[in-house]
Amino acid sequence: MKATGIVVEYNPFHNGHRLHLNKARELTKPDVVIAVMSGSFVQRGEPAILPKWERTKMALAAGVDIVVELPVSFATQHATIFAEESVRILDALHVNTLFFGSEHGMTSDFSKVAHMVTNQKTTFNLMIKQALENKKVSYATAYTLALQTLLGKAIIDVTKPNNILGFHYALAIEKQNPAIQLKSIPREHANYHDEFASHNQIASATAIRKLILAGDLHQAANYLPATSMEILQAYSGPFLSWENYWSFLRFRLLQATSEELSHIRSVSEGIQNRMQRAAITATDFSAFIEQAKTKRYSNARIQRTALQILLNATDKPSSPYIRILGMNKVGQKYLALHKKNIALPVVTTASKAPSELLTEDLKATTIYTLVNGLESYQKGDFQIPPMITL
Amino acid sequence: MKATGIVVEYNPFHNGHRLHLNKARELTKPDVVIAVMSGSFVQRGEPAILPKWERTKMALAAGVDIVVELPVSFATQHATIFAEESVRILDALHVNTLFFGSEHGMTSDFSKVAHMVTNQKTTFNLMIKQALENKKVSYATAYTLALQTLLGKAIIDVTKPNNILGFHYALAIEKQNPAIQLKSIPREHANYHDEFASHNQIASATAIRKLILAGDLHQAANYLPATSMEILQAYSGPFLSWENYWSFLRFRLLQATSEELSHIRSVSEGIQNRMQRAAITATDFSAFIEQAKTKRYSNARIQRTALQILLNATDKPSSPYIRILGMNKVGQKYLALHKKNIALPVVTTASKAPSELLTEDLKATTIYTLVNGLESYQKGDFQIPPMITL
Repeated sequence: MKATGIVVEYNPFHNGHRLHLNKARELTKPDVVIAVMSGSFVQRGEPAILPKWERTKMALAAGVDIVVELPVSFATQHATIFAEESVRILDALHVNTLFFGSEHGMTSDFSKVAHMVTNQKTTFNLMIKQALENKKVSYATAYTLALQTLLGKAIIDVTKPNNILGFHYALAIEKQNPAIQLKSIPREHANYHDEFASHNQIASATAIRKLILAGDLHQAANYLPATSMEILQAYSGPFLSWENYWSFLRFRLLQATSEELSHIRSVSEGIQNRMQRAAITATDFSAFIEQAKTKRYSNARIQRTALQILLNATDKPSSPYIRILGMNKVGQKYLALHKKNIALPVVTTASKAPSELLTEDLKATTIYTLVNGLESYQKGDFQIPPMITL
Repeated sequence: MKATGIVVEYNPFHNGHRLHLNKARELTKPDVVIAVMSGSFVQRGEPAILPKWERTKMALAAGVDIVVELPVSFATQHATIFAEESVRILDALHVNTLFFGSEHGMTSDFSKVAHMVTNQKTTFNLMIKQALENKKVSYATAYTLALQTLLGKAIIDVTKPNNILGFHYALAIEKQNPAIQLKSIPREHANYHDEFASHNQIASATAIRKLILAGDLHQAANYLPATSMEILQAYSGPFLSWENYWSFLRFRLLQATSEELSHIRSVSEGIQNRMQRAAITATDFSAFIEQAKTKRYSNARIQRTALQILLNATDKPSSPYIRILGMNKVGQKYLALHKKNIALPVVTTASKAPSELLTEDLKATTIYTLVNGLESYQKGDFQIPPMITL
C-alpha cells in the first residue's frame, strides 16, 4: 500500500485543509493518507482551540486515514525539531511521500536548498552564530539571514513560515531517509480557484479561530466543511486560547524563582526575569506578551517560552513514539500490514504504554483540561480509545 | 515605658480577642501593647480571611499600640518555629511580659515544664525519634507523647493547641531571654462571665469565619466588636479561604515533578506523591485534603505542606526582621524611644528595605492577591505605609 504523509494542526480543520488533503490524494495517488497532528498545544506555543479528540474527529470525517499525535515536546518547538520529529514518525510509518503546502510551491527547490545547506553545515552554523552577536537579532532572524547569505540569491523566500517548514522537512528527509519523496503545492489563493467558487470559502486558521472565539460560529461556517461544523456544534466545552491559561501562567511566573525557570526548555539569556516582571502588572495574556517582548525575543518566542513554563518542561524531550489518535478501516489495514516493522513504539492504549514515554503528553493533557468545562476530557488519554471510523 | 507583647492572628479580630487584650492591660499594666500578627497566611496553613491591612486596622481600632507582621516563613510553621520567632521579635522590641491565653491557664506550670524539657533535651529528642518509628504517628503526636512521658504525670495537657503554644513560648523565653515575664490566663468561657452578659458574644474564630464565608455577616456581628464590624462592612474584596487558591495549588501539583516538590519546606517521606495523586481527582480543596491525609499526615500537616507548595517555599527561611504594619501615637513614641537599640532590622517602608529580607513576604502578598477582587492590595507592601492612628 502506498502512503502519503502530511503534517497538520487542524486548529480547526477548515476548507483550506480539505483542499490540501484532496490535492495530496490527487497528486500523489496514495492508498492511505497519514496525518501527524499536534495535540493539545500547537507549534506557535498556544493551546489548540479544541481538544485533540475533536480535531481527530474532524480529520477522520474529512477523509484522513490515520491520525498520529506529534508528542508535545516536539509539537511546541521551533521548526527544526518540529519538522525532524514529524518526519521521523512518518518515516517509521513507511510513507512514500511527504506532501505539504508552501508559499513557494516548487518542490525541487526545497530539496536543492536542503542539499546546499547540508553540504556547508559548518559555514552555515558559523553564519548563524555571527548574526546572533547582534543582541537585537532573534534566532529565527539569524537563521533566515544565514540561509539567505548562503543561498546567494534567494531561491526560496525563507522568511515565509511554510517555506521554512518545507525547507526543514527537506533537511530532515535528506538526513533521515532520502527515499521519501517531497511534494509541495503553492498555498496562494489563486490555486484554490478550481475547487471553490470564490475566495470567500477560504480563510486562515487564525482568522477562523478569531471568529469562533468571538462566538461567531455562523460566520466561521463559511470557511469550514460541514463535517467540521457538525463537530464544532456538538462540542459542549469552551473554545480555548491563552487567556484561559493566563492565571496559571501568571501564578507560576510569580511563584517560581528565576533560577528554577532558567532550567525550563527554551529559557535563555535571562528572558525569564523579563517575563516575571511583566507578570506582575499584566492583567491578561496579550498585555503580558506586549510587555515581555523585545527586538530579540519576538511575540512568537515569548509565547513558546511561556508555554514551556506552563507545562514545566524541564526534562529533556521525551523519546519519539507513535500515538494513534484515530483511523478508519483503510488505516487499520495499513497498520496491520506494517505492524512488525515500525521502528518506533506504537501506542494505542495509554495505560499499556511505558509511562516514561507518555509523561510529557499526559501532563500536557492534564494542564490543558484544567479549564472549567473540560472535565470530561481530563482522563482522556486513558479513557478515549483511538477513534475508529468506517 | 513598660511593654506587653501578644502573639495574634486576628483572623478576624473578635470579642474573645478584645477580652484577651483587655486582660493583658488589666493584669500586666503596660504602657504599650505590641502584637506580633501573622500576615496573609496563618499558622494552620491557610489564607487569612481578610488582608493583613484590614486586620491591622481592626487591631488598632481595638487598642493595640503596635502591630508587627510575623514573617510568613515563620507564621506558617509548626508551633516551635512560630513561637521562637514571635518571641525573638518581642524580645528585640524589649517587651517585659508575654501575655497569652491557654486552656491550662496557670503561668508557673509553663515555665516549670519548659525548664524540665530544656534540662533533658537529649532524652526528649530520643523519645520523639522512638515514637516516630511507628509510621502511623505524626510528628505532633510524637512530640506530645514524648512530652507526656517526660513530665510523668500530666502537669499541662499538651494535646490542647494553646497549651502547646504556651509551652513553646516558655521554651523560647528560657532560651532567648529568661528576663521576659510569662503571663497566661485561662481561655475557658467561664472566665468571660465578668465582661459579657452571656456566652453568646463569644465564638471561636473558626466559627466566625464560617459565618462570614457563608455570607452571614449579620450573625457574625454577635461575636465581633463594632470596630471590627465597621471594617468588615467597608471591605469590598472577597473573604478568603483555601478554595480561592485551590486552582493554583492543583495546577502546581499537577505541573511539578515529584523531585521538585521534594525540595519544598515541610515536604518529606514522599507525601508530595500522595498530594499529586489526590490533585488529579479532587475537585475542591476540602476533597483534596480528605484524599491526601493519612494517619501520619493529619489534615493540618497536609494543609501546611500545601501552603508551602503554593508559596513555593524552597529557600531556607528568611532572617527575622520587624515589619511595622501599624501603630498609634503611643506605639510611635515607644518605637522612637527604642530606635537605637532594636537588635533586628526594622522595616517601615518595604521599598527601602534590603530585598532579600522581604522576598518571601512580598511573594506571599503577590500570591495572596492573585484572587479576583484583591487587585487594590497587589502592590500593598510597597504602597500601603504603616497605618498610624491617633
